Amino acid sequence: MRAQSDKDTPDLGRIVQGARRLSRPYRVDNGRKFRLQDVDPGDTGGLGAEDKPRAREALASGREALAELQDMLYAQDRWAVLLVFQAMDAAGKDGAIKHVMSGVNPQGCQVFSFKAPTSEELDHDYLWRCTKSLPERGRIGIFNRSYYEEVLVVKVHPEFLAAQKLPPKLVGKKVWDHRYQDIRALERYLSRNGVLIRKFFLNVSRDEQKRRFLERIDEPEKNWKFSAGDVKERGHWDAYMDAYQTMIRETSTPESPWYVVPADNKWYTRAVVSAAIVDAMASLGLRYPKVDDAKLAELTAARKVLLSEKR
Amino acid sequence: MRAQSDKDTPDLGRIVQGARRLSRPYRVDNGRKFRLQDVDPGDTGGLGAEDKPRAREALASGREALAELQDMLYAQDRWAVLLVFQAMDAAGKDGAIKHVMSGVNPQGCQVFSFKAPTSEELDHDYLWRCTKSLPERGRIGIFNRSYYEEVLVVKVHPEFLAAQKLPPKLVGKKVWDHRYQDIRALERYLSRNGVLIRKFFLNVSRDEQKRRFLERIDEPEKNWKFSAGDVKERGHWDAYMDAYQTMIRETSTPESPWYVVPADNKWYTRAVVSAAIVDAMASLGLRYPKVDDAKLAELTAARKVLLSEKR
Repeated sequence: MRAQSDKDTPDLGRIVQGARRLSRPYRVDNGRKFRLQDVDPGDTGGLGAEDKPRAREALASGREALAELQDMLYAQDRWAVLLVFQAMDAAGKDGAIKHVMSGVNPQGCQVFSFKAPTSEELDHDYLWRCTKSLPERGRIGIFNRSYYEEVLVVKVHPEFLAAQKLPPKLVGKKVWDHRYQDIRALERYLSRNGVLIRKFFLNVSRDEQKRRFLERIDEPEKNWKFSAGDVKERGHWDAYMDAYQTMIRETSTPESPWYVVPADNKWYTRAVVSAAIVDAMASLGLRYPKVDDAKLAELTAARKVLLSEKR
Repeated sequence: MRAQSDKDTPDLGRIVQGARRLSRPYRVDNGRKFRLQDVDPGDTGGLGAEDKPRAREALASGREALAELQDMLYAQDRWAVLLVFQAMDAAGKDGAIKHVMSGVNPQGCQVFSFKAPTSEELDHDYLWRCTKSLPERGRIGIFNRSYYEEVLVVKVHPEFLAAQKLPPKLVGKKVWDHRYQDIRALERYLSRNGVLIRKFFLNVSRDEQKRRFLERIDEPEKNWKFSAGDVKERGHWDAYMDAYQTMIRETSTPESPWYVVPADNKWYTRAVVSAAIVDAMASLGLRYPKVDDAKLAELTAARKVLLSEKR
């Protein structure tokens, strides 16, 4: 019984331990004292360029571990996993999702990218478009941007808040405090209902963003990724950093932590993100479902029917 | 310019040629004379057990080719790809999706599994739940079962048709002919609007299904996949085969062909499915988007802004 998972466990156990070690330093369970200036976007956990191959190996074994964990998640059909990615442009969200999650069965993994809201979306409350895309039990859902945009881009650009057509008397001085509170309440509710939440802020430096923008401009095959609006948005850098810091302070909880992932080195970013997801999913104690007595009787009966078939 | 794709083309070209050779024999462009009894579920294209490693290699290079093609599909953002999977239970749909598509960026790939319709779905026309889940441009959408259930399980079980609450005078003798026609019209419309459609019938034999059911009963870690209803459904085998044959006859077209894939050997099934998708996507002539003059001017302006930044 359970031969397969027994066989795989020691290996998985080793990977999970390494994943915990690598990712825990970046996890914020309680953000009250969090300051962005205390963390270094160029941090590589003491690893140098010569360690890149090792980091890539860790990523590869993380991918295998994720495939295995996701298979159990799907079979057990009790938990859902929600991964939220937020970052400045060119911080590497798309690449992280691609490199960390390729290898997972797409049947058990859904990615939603949230862009500027449509007019239909603006006619609803601001959580609506995200909550209707939440992952089903047994699945991993990935939000590439999310309702957190509501306390990031919308906070930096008051004109976007105005466009949300809220009744004016509901938009007071406490509007941001209310949003943090509403988001905390949503995530608390989801956690209570079997959705495991992990949030990733890919922390890229202003200099590295510039370097990557220039790369997108100078390398023709990357041109399609570049939008002129990105450079304009960069003008609001300090306001964004302030919004990110407050967001992390206000919405980091033990059940729904932020990972503030150094993002100036893509190879390290991806290794940390992968490790954090492996750590989180391993904490669920996933296992293939065991059959109960009723199901066992059903199986025995089905076996008999099959073996007695005439042709 | 285009350095990356130039470099990759010869390799991709070779893979595509092999994929075409492997998959074309199973493609039905015109089903008028199609007979299930003419095809062998145990067919392995002349390959023996000793060729399994080679088939696995083909699957692996197919996965790489798919990842590359999908990346271009996403960047170009013109076409969508719809892959439909239909089969008897235990024919290997889930496994094929997992083994063929793992490796593709989940950001560009969505899988929908259609089970027994909910009461909300029954209150709509029968295509509704599928059309609202169609892939967006730039994405691959996978239907694990689909609107084809409407001419399979619903045809085998007239009570399901009754449950659809259609006005009685609309349910006449021609109801199935109308459904084939409606489905052909939908697929014609989608093709005209940039959705590439490929459909897979995984053709498993009655004996092999029995063997796999017994495996699910006898191996505890597979128990969760087994439902007693599956054995009961097996009692309608001939009616199902008849429905599949008619479906393939009525809905195979050059723009929306069925692949009737031998499914008694999983390694071969997966190699053929992978090859058919590679062949199809390669036929789109995908390429990374080139920038036009307006965009080029935009890039130059952005470059200037970035380089003149004060800090």
